[in-house]
Amino acid sequence: MNIPPTTPLTPITRQDCQVLDAADPLRALRDAFDIPAGLIYLDGNSLGVMPKSAAACAARVVTQEWGQGLIGSWNAAGWFSLPQRLGARIAPLIGAGTDEVLATDSTSINLYKVLSAALDNASSGNAAQDAPARRQVLSERSNFPTDLYIAEGLCRERGFTLTLVEPENIASSLNAEVAVLLLTHVNYRTGAMHDMAAVNAAAHAAGALVVWDLAHSAGAVPVALKDSDADYAVGCGYKYLNGGPGAPAFLWVHPRHTDRFRQPLAGWWGHAAPFAFTPDYQPAAGIARYLCGTQPVVSLSLLGCGLEAFEAAQALGGMAALRAKSLALSDLFIRLVGERCAGHGVGLATPLPHAQRGSQVCLTRPTGAFAIVQALIARGVVGDFRAGDGAAQPDILRFGLTPLYIGFEDVWNAVEQLREVLESGEWQRPEFHRQHAVT
Amino acid sequence: MNIPPTTPLTPITRQDCQVLDAADPLRALRDAFDIPAGLIYLDGNSLGVMPKSAAACAARVVTQEWGQGLIGSWNAAGWFSLPQRLGARIAPLIGAGTDEVLATDSTSINLYKVLSAALDNASSGNAAQDAPARRQVLSERSNFPTDLYIAEGLCRERGFTLTLVEPENIASSLNAEVAVLLLTHVNYRTGAMHDMAAVNAAAHAAGALVVWDLAHSAGAVPVALKDSDADYAVGCGYKYLNGGPGAPAFLWVHPRHTDRFRQPLAGWWGHAAPFAFTPDYQPAAGIARYLCGTQPVVSLSLLGCGLEAFEAAQALGGMAALRAKSLALSDLFIRLVGERCAGHGVGLATPLPHAQRGSQVCLTRPTGAFAIVQALIARGVVGDFRAGDGAAQPDILRFGLTPLYIGFEDVWNAVEQLREVLESGEWQRPEFHRQHAVT
Repeated sequence: MNIPPTTPLTPITRQDCQVLDAADPLRALRDAFDIPAGLIYLDGNSLGVMPKSAAACAARVVTQEWGQGLIGSWNAAGWFSLPQRLGARIAPLIGAGTDEVLATDSTSINLYKVLSAALDNASSGNAAQDAPARRQVLSERSNFPTDLYIAEGLCRERGFTLTLVEPENIASSLNAEVAVLLLTHVNYRTGAMHDMAAVNAAAHAAGALVVWDLAHSAGAVPVALKDSDADYAVGCGYKYLNGGPGAPAFLWVHPRHTDRFRQPLAGWWGHAAPFAFTPDYQPAAGIARYLCGTQPVVSLSLLGCGLEAFEAAQALGGMAALRAKSLALSDLFIRLVGERCAGHGVGLATPLPHAQRGSQVCLTRPTGAFAIVQALIARGVVGDFRAGDGAAQPDILRFGLTPLYIGFEDVWNAVEQLREVLESGEWQRPEFHRQHAVT
Repeated sequence: MNIPPTTPLTPITRQDCQVLDAADPLRALRDAFDIPAGLIYLDGNSLGVMPKSAAACAARVVTQEWGQGLIGSWNAAGWFSLPQRLGARIAPLIGAGTDEVLATDSTSINLYKVLSAALDNASSGNAAQDAPARRQVLSERSNFPTDLYIAEGLCRERGFTLTLVEPENIASSLNAEVAVLLLTHVNYRTGAMHDMAAVNAAAHAAGALVVWDLAHSAGAVPVALKDSDADYAVGCGYKYLNGGPGAPAFLWVHPRHTDRFRQPLAGWWGHAAPFAFTPDYQPAAGIARYLCGTQPVVSLSLLGCGLEAFEAAQALGGMAALRAKSLALSDLFIRLVGERCAGHGVGLATPLPHAQRGSQVCLTRPTGAFAIVQALIARGVVGDFRAGDGAAQPDILRFGLTPLYIGFEDVWNAVEQLREVLESGEWQRPEFHRQHAVT
């Protein structure tokens, strides 16, 4: 879609943005983060910035807990209970009970666990009702690819079919064949957000379960897993949760399902009595059965530093206040692009209605999107590029707006740099067209 | 078995041990490790000690690579290639090619991947030969429980049966039903070591593939995966490799199998073109297809510190020299227990022949094993306890002898403390009988 025409207000100025920052009750939260000088980092939806507490945490876990405490730290430093303790801290961000979430493994591996359990669950439900087995997993064609890969592999193993549709056809595709609907709440390419409660209701009405990927939601938008009646969820620790590179991920299972089904990665940490060392597997009661093997303690501990800022935000209105600021930031970004970058062929991929938008703004441009992102990075404005397929999906310039540490003047400065890159044509320089692995 | 009677030599003295340390060409390697003052740490088979380089490494990865480099570090700091680069450094320790090993995920998850591929492999082989399908996975009853749990789960899913036998019955159980033989090279309870080449030959002669768990072998004993003609292997990063608490594990696949079979945890890191973001999964060529999701970069980086000591050992004779020292240490430990702890009911669970022994010494005692271990820990000698089942498997006092940082006088001192604990009867004090989660 095109950027909407500027409303007939006076164009917004940098000074207006400074006023907004001065009035921002969440402004102090950015002091908890170490943001490289001169950088406007709009890529927190890919890798969140480092909390200042991370350095001391890493030093403590490495030199004290490991170096001095050694094997005793499994108990004394609470290493064993880290997945549960961190899960309890993530729970309020996603509308889950504190004993329903684990921080563990990677998003892909957690998806394999919960999707497998959901398939068992669906099969079991059908068997009980003596209905024909549902053999379909439904998802979006533009879902994050690794989710589709995991689903594809599991479907092949288990005799299910993975059906991919466009977002507007999800509701009409929820038929009696669908066992599980697998969706990412906020789309990684466009920032478009599903109405979780409405989707859950439609899926349940059609007899399907819903598995949500919260990679671009947790810490970015309020999520109400339990109130919206979701079934399973996974999410990422290193994006909006600022847990560090490759931080372990999380998973959630609605308590109505937890003890009824197993997950296939049945390692000793998920055993009812991990230190009884019995040769047969008995799954633990509760969410602990979704654990598998020993966890990377240093990376897992650092995830705790990322959660501190959300805990500090609690007294300032929590996720609701962060959401309000995030929407104000993205509204401002969209308005400024419309006011200041008009005539340069820039379109908007992110939906305008607030209820349909995550915490990122995604722009399109028929040509040059990759090079424009590179030219912006060279100017210290870090967004990222996601390639389209040349047809239905355009190339994307993606800008994450993390309300914990991005301010209104940052948005003004970022758009101003974009305007200069477009007006000067500097993005056409050869060095900005060199392709490399994008992240 | 009982400790063998002391040979009619002069009993060995502490001074003899000091002479051995002074003559030990590997002695300087321990300077690379930070061992808490006053501690004799004989639990490196559970959690290796901290290399001195770990603190600076953690600080660099957290504050520089993450804090300053941010998203650019995926390429600039080589985060993407860490699993392959660390795998290449583990390869010489296990007799594998440098492009055949990955450091990634946990041992349990890696076992799930390779065992699944091995089952596909076995099924495929049978289909090609038009022979009846082999439907059995054979393992040892006393294999590390998590390996059995993973195998049990995978067998249930895939229609296989897990058959558990005693070690002496493995050879006779290799019949035409067995698809895969799953063994841990060095037993976690007893320290008994299989003859890898002989087992591989017997299994292959019977038409089965062999999956090895090297958790207590890698970095402890020389391993020759390829020369012994193994098929698949997994192993642990945080025991003898000193990679830090919960350090990511490793896996190896014989190149004759790598490109022929998929593994089910098909995440984007194992895709042929992870950044093409295509909706369908195409496994990468080579060992990279055994990757799944994003890896915990900080924990993974620390594994590199653990490998430095092995690289330093290379100039001093490498794994062969470490093995010679390890056997000298365990011979000394066994001899000293025989000489100095006679009459206290202590037996030996570890086999005496060198070829059948890993790098740990496991003692038995009909009563009090748990409390004796606790009393030793209180005296600064850290070993660990593994409960028996009251019948075939006795309770175990387990002592890991890591040749990188344990010396001969350490062994003398440890046995001397054991003698004092036994002679004084102090282990009978109530505080040493309190059970808690053991690690």
